Amino acid sequence: MMRQVNLEDSHAIAIGAGVLGTGGGGSTYLNRLRLNRELRQAGTPVQVIQADDVPDDALVCAVGGMGAPTVSNEKLQEGQEIKRAVRALEEHLRQKIYAIVIGEIGGGNALGPMITALQLGLPVVDGDGMGRAFPELDMDTFMIYGAAPAPFALADSHGNVAIFKRIGSAKQAEEFARSLTIEMGGSAGLVMPVMSGAELKATVIRDTLSLAKGLGDAVLDCRARGIEPAETVAAQCKGKVLFRGKIIDVERRTVQGFARGKLVISAFDRFDHQLEIEFQNENLIARSNGEVLCTVPDLITLVTLEEGEPIGTEALRYGLRVAVLAMPAPKELKTPEALAVVGPLAFGYDEEYSPLPGDLL
Amino acid sequence: MMRQVNLEDSHAIAIGAGVLGTGGGGSTYLNRLRLNRELRQAGTPVQVIQADDVPDDALVCAVGGMGAPTVSNEKLQEGQEIKRAVRALEEHLRQKIYAIVIGEIGGGNALGPMITALQLGLPVVDGDGMGRAFPELDMDTFMIYGAAPAPFALADSHGNVAIFKRIGSAKQAEEFARSLTIEMGGSAGLVMPVMSGAELKATVIRDTLSLAKGLGDAVLDCRARGIEPAETVAAQCKGKVLFRGKIIDVERRTVQGFARGKLVISAFDRFDHQLEIEFQNENLIARSNGEVLCTVPDLITLVTLEEGEPIGTEALRYGLRVAVLAMPAPKELKTPEALAVVGPLAFGYDEEYSPLPGDLL
Repeated sequence: MMRQVNLEDSHAIAIGAGVLGTGGGGSTYLNRLRLNRELRQAGTPVQVIQADDVPDDALVCAVGGMGAPTVSNEKLQEGQEIKRAVRALEEHLRQKIYAIVIGEIGGGNALGPMITALQLGLPVVDGDGMGRAFPELDMDTFMIYGAAPAPFALADSHGNVAIFKRIGSAKQAEEFARSLTIEMGGSAGLVMPVMSGAELKATVIRDTLSLAKGLGDAVLDCRARGIEPAETVAAQCKGKVLFRGKIIDVERRTVQGFARGKLVISAFDRFDHQLEIEFQNENLIARSNGEVLCTVPDLITLVTLEEGEPIGTEALRYGLRVAVLAMPAPKELKTPEALAVVGPLAFGYDEEYSPLPGDLL
Repeated sequence: MMRQVNLEDSHAIAIGAGVLGTGGGGSTYLNRLRLNRELRQAGTPVQVIQADDVPDDALVCAVGGMGAPTVSNEKLQEGQEIKRAVRALEEHLRQKIYAIVIGEIGGGNALGPMITALQLGLPVVDGDGMGRAFPELDMDTFMIYGAAPAPFALADSHGNVAIFKRIGSAKQAEEFARSLTIEMGGSAGLVMPVMSGAELKATVIRDTLSLAKGLGDAVLDCRARGIEPAETVAAQCKGKVLFRGKIIDVERRTVQGFARGKLVISAFDRFDHQLEIEFQNENLIARSNGEVLCTVPDLITLVTLEEGEPIGTEALRYGLRVAVLAMPAPKELKTPEALAVVGPLAFGYDEEYSPLPGDLL
């Protein structure tokens, strides 16, 4: 059980978060640099607590970056925007925040909340609302299992802060926040939701920060031993290596605040054996010869073949030699309520969700 | 000096506000119906105060509808959105609002604030921030002469309320609010700016509610006496009748939340004698045979020939017989600071502002 995050942990967590990010959640590279600097400046580690350590009536808030990874990779954060947004909500609600919650454990969004926690002198909860990364803010277990979408706050690198005080639904929050994020330049800091400790305990996916750390440790261990990490990582998540090959085609556009597109991977041995993956910030569906092999909410992650380094959808390019991992989603994402929000139908695919072979729902 | 607004005043104010609206500011018809209903329900008139009646340290806020008139004419308000936004700001700031200020005296936006004032049991100030209507929220004397753009609030007909707590500039506020208004369906309630009484007194254009009432009274009087109102109205504003004729062409699109387009009016006697007007919610520039006759911030208003009924840009259509009025803008809109925001160059026209003949700056 993790109790704190130190400088020497950040590399493993970044790798693990990249694996869980399924291509999205923002660059772990940039946020790892930012976290390391913050850790050095603070001179103390990030304190990690369990969800069950939070008193029922205490207030917590999830935080993260919103926008397309293609944008946040180039438009750097000012650094204090999320802190500013948390303070604004505290002032608005006239109640202090007890702990910071990771909105999504995938990609750079796993690391950002620890920066905010250090800046505010608060602990971070070991867990998150996605167990991976998802493109839209209504796609987390907090929203799916009934946390209120308002108030939430959005902040940009110019110091602008907006508080949404009343919002009809999580989907509505997504639409407003997306539109404002685009106006803020395509990337913004989000504080959402604000919850009681009781709500947190009822909805959070537990221990995912520890999971990210463990996955990263495994990758680093494989590297040290000179073996390809893909099998080890997949096994640790009860998944499998779906495909190995070379990226031969990438289509990617930044539309409506998202990085959307698809990629084609060709097997090393047989050029006509191909895997096609479609993504919206995150990898959503993998097909081979028209057969669907894996869909959201299960995790589809590309890692480099030799190093096991996870590849964000913003970093996809021709020629990369990759392994594709398919890993079952946490159980909290596979209930009927959750699949209605994060299943393949919800993303516009004409496919019912079917679990990966061997996965027990 | 007006002291209150009763049921019998609303018709004249609606007509006068339409004249000052220069085609924009939203439908006076709808807001007049709403105001009449509110007056009947309240059983009391709207209390009107002078800007100088507001204590320096009291808090006031300007309110209005944001969006394209083409939209707000069809997407009706729920009715309480601006009240809800004012309450949200009061709660956010932990200070009561002393009086409601009319954001723009042009069009339906002259009447909406009186509805809010009745709902909140507050007086309304005789004056506004535009002396007419303008398409963008940074285009008022409050913003031009230095009121802070934050906090401001935006609310929609579904009960959603957003508070912008920190905003870098009025232009930035316009961009955020416009984008969110579009997401809210193209029309929203705006509370902006929140000011002290001292700031109000330094920036407001005084007595424009009385002016609207006086213009409307003049039109109604002309109608009762069976004479065309155009000359009388123009004279009351120290302006003139620029043109008389029939609308022979209208181009209008709703783009980026605005009603944009142009119209052509042909003189009754000579078909080749034409006036062309371009608009963005409001009429912005009038040309004849390539010669510019009038530009923002001066007022260009179309009224029906016989009745002197002002015509909103959303109601323009082929065949209407109209008089075009050109009236000098209030002096507060003709300073160098103001012209930088509301002059023809600011609207993208390659024209320096030149005052109407006979207008003393």
